[in-house]
Amino acid sequence: MPALTVPLGDRSYPIHIGDGLLGDAALLAAVLPARRIAVVTNDIVGPLYAPRLQATWAAAGATPLLEIVLPDGERHKTLPTVSRILDTLVANRFARDDLVVALGGGVVGDMAGFAAACYQRGIGFVQMPTTLLAQVDSSVGGKTGVNHPGGKNLIGAFHQPRAVIADTATLATLPPRELRAGLAEVVKHALICDAAFFSWLEANADALLALDPAALAHAVHRCCTIKAGVVSRDERETGERALLNLGHTFGHAIEQVTGFGPWLHGEAVGVGLAMAAGMSQRAGWLPAADAARLDALLARLGLRTEARGAVTPQAARAAMQLDKKVQGGRVRLVLLKGIGQAFVTADWPTDAFDDTLQEHLA
Amino acid sequence: MPALTVPLGDRSYPIHIGDGLLGDAALLAAVLPARRIAVVTNDIVGPLYAPRLQATWAAAGATPLLEIVLPDGERHKTLPTVSRILDTLVANRFARDDLVVALGGGVVGDMAGFAAACYQRGIGFVQMPTTLLAQVDSSVGGKTGVNHPGGKNLIGAFHQPRAVIADTATLATLPPRELRAGLAEVVKHALICDAAFFSWLEANADALLALDPAALAHAVHRCCTIKAGVVSRDERETGERALLNLGHTFGHAIEQVTGFGPWLHGEAVGVGLAMAAGMSQRAGWLPAADAARLDALLARLGLRTEARGAVTPQAARAAMQLDKKVQGGRVRLVLLKGIGQAFVTADWPTDAFDDTLQEHLA
Repeated sequence: MPALTVPLGDRSYPIHIGDGLLGDAALLAAVLPARRIAVVTNDIVGPLYAPRLQATWAAAGATPLLEIVLPDGERHKTLPTVSRILDTLVANRFARDDLVVALGGGVVGDMAGFAAACYQRGIGFVQMPTTLLAQVDSSVGGKTGVNHPGGKNLIGAFHQPRAVIADTATLATLPPRELRAGLAEVVKHALICDAAFFSWLEANADALLALDPAALAHAVHRCCTIKAGVVSRDERETGERALLNLGHTFGHAIEQVTGFGPWLHGEAVGVGLAMAAGMSQRAGWLPAADAARLDALLARLGLRTEARGAVTPQAARAAMQLDKKVQGGRVRLVLLKGIGQAFVTADWPTDAFDDTLQEHLA
Repeated sequence: MPALTVPLGDRSYPIHIGDGLLGDAALLAAVLPARRIAVVTNDIVGPLYAPRLQATWAAAGATPLLEIVLPDGERHKTLPTVSRILDTLVANRFARDDLVVALGGGVVGDMAGFAAACYQRGIGFVQMPTTLLAQVDSSVGGKTGVNHPGGKNLIGAFHQPRAVIADTATLATLPPRELRAGLAEVVKHALICDAAFFSWLEANADALLALDPAALAHAVHRCCTIKAGVVSRDERETGERALLNLGHTFGHAIEQVTGFGPWLHGEAVGVGLAMAAGMSQRAGWLPAADAARLDALLARLGLRTEARGAVTPQAARAAMQLDKKVQGGRVRLVLLKGIGQAFVTADWPTDAFDDTLQEHLA
């Protein structure tokens, strides 16, 4: 499959998607020209894929990659963990022309990218996403950062990678729960702007759940194409890019209230998508049939559409006050006028919001 | 005095320089339009100038500014201190359209700016420098960050302020030692590219040391003009901007080896300037008369030209290995071909380097 490009002028970069790319020595040599390289990974992904990456690298005759292994899990996505990465870069005397590689899911990518953004005011980094969620969403676009006890992703930087290498073979080891969580972000992309892709997902849900390589590769390619376009038109999220937050204001509230751990990010986003659709329907913007199609697809993919018993409406309301999308005191929500037609508004009916919290949370 | 501008496209910003600007309600209202404002200051500067700023702000009918008071001193310029600023912004539910103000010297500006760069992936900030060093140098150009035990300014971001307000009246309370440290950065600007300004400094050294308001205002204006030009042509330091590091590779080594505290940044830079000139002379690039003029000016300004007894050549050498200006394993140095003629090179004679360390350190 030919590489996609995220066109951002002198910060443009390729997205390579394919089966077995971690074993492609020529590709690695082209993408990793730096003098020294630190691979940031975690204690689950590292043992699975770092040896393969090292072997490919060694075959090119290069010195071993420095490995920085973090504890797995969203609850470790904190400033102290990033500080550990920075300490290791300092201890190994990394310079401005050296490179950081993120090998793992979204949490690893967010932290490795933020460390690269801050080290010596910015060194290069390459994303090698190994989860569906990271391959379809978080590895593209340059959003990096960590959580704060007060809110999700409150501390971070925009720092674009030099390249993204999505080896779809790594999805074969993905636990079913992580697969489903990633599929929530796939559904998000379709909902925002691609009704035909949404129909394709309805037709191919079983293939995706069965880890069919061709289906997964198509989904990754389609999502990256959509995201690359949005990011290139609005890198810093002053407009259109905010659409990519569909489901995320509600989803972040769920993650934050539950303490960044029990819910995977994609699981919370799945509920958030259902809430955005439900609220859009209540406001009279979304046909009931479209909301029903979404609920049905989420259910087929094994995703929850409510977080009752986990989050109360009151707690979610408080959490959303600190969302980054709050401007002038009122949260801007991404809502729907149809499948494939998302829009942003701060001018939504309060009762539709209240009723949605009441129905999906308790 | 009319405002200068740092021309950076849609991130261009004004530098206002003048006597009593912290009392100028119309200027503050024009520069601080945000919904909420956090003033980051320290326990020395805060009691001196925060009440004046609050009073001016209150006269405009605005709600009080939130104050975040840090401990004074370079040894507190660390990630944990920035984390405290972030905690306060989160606790007060600051949003993307709110603002951070840095009221203080270079340390306060570097940390407030880095916190603004990281909070919600970047919110606006305004520099209100109260030391000569910050007014002539660190408040302009968007370099923000903190020190790491392993090296100076190793962690940070490029994040341009929305405006710089340099109230030269604040220099009246500047301790003599801080004044001298700031003058080292003034000399640096002249040495890099402005021989006429260097001559002016020789003629006006006494006036500057006596805190003559007109002389100080001229020096601030001249340095900001030089720096705004360099930054606008090379914001991210891929070329010309590196010239502004004249004296800083040696200076940073002194600060780091002595533990970020006993030497003020400007004091270390003063020694660094003398070392850069001495090495340039040894290499045959700088006329001896020019090096002698520099030494004489530094001496008149009460600045040291060596750090004997404080830093050994060996320790300085190790510290310089982690300097951000190291590329491909060899440190790039800013050296001199004449007063007003700095240049960057990694191709310098090793014995000139060794002899310079030997003469100025022990």
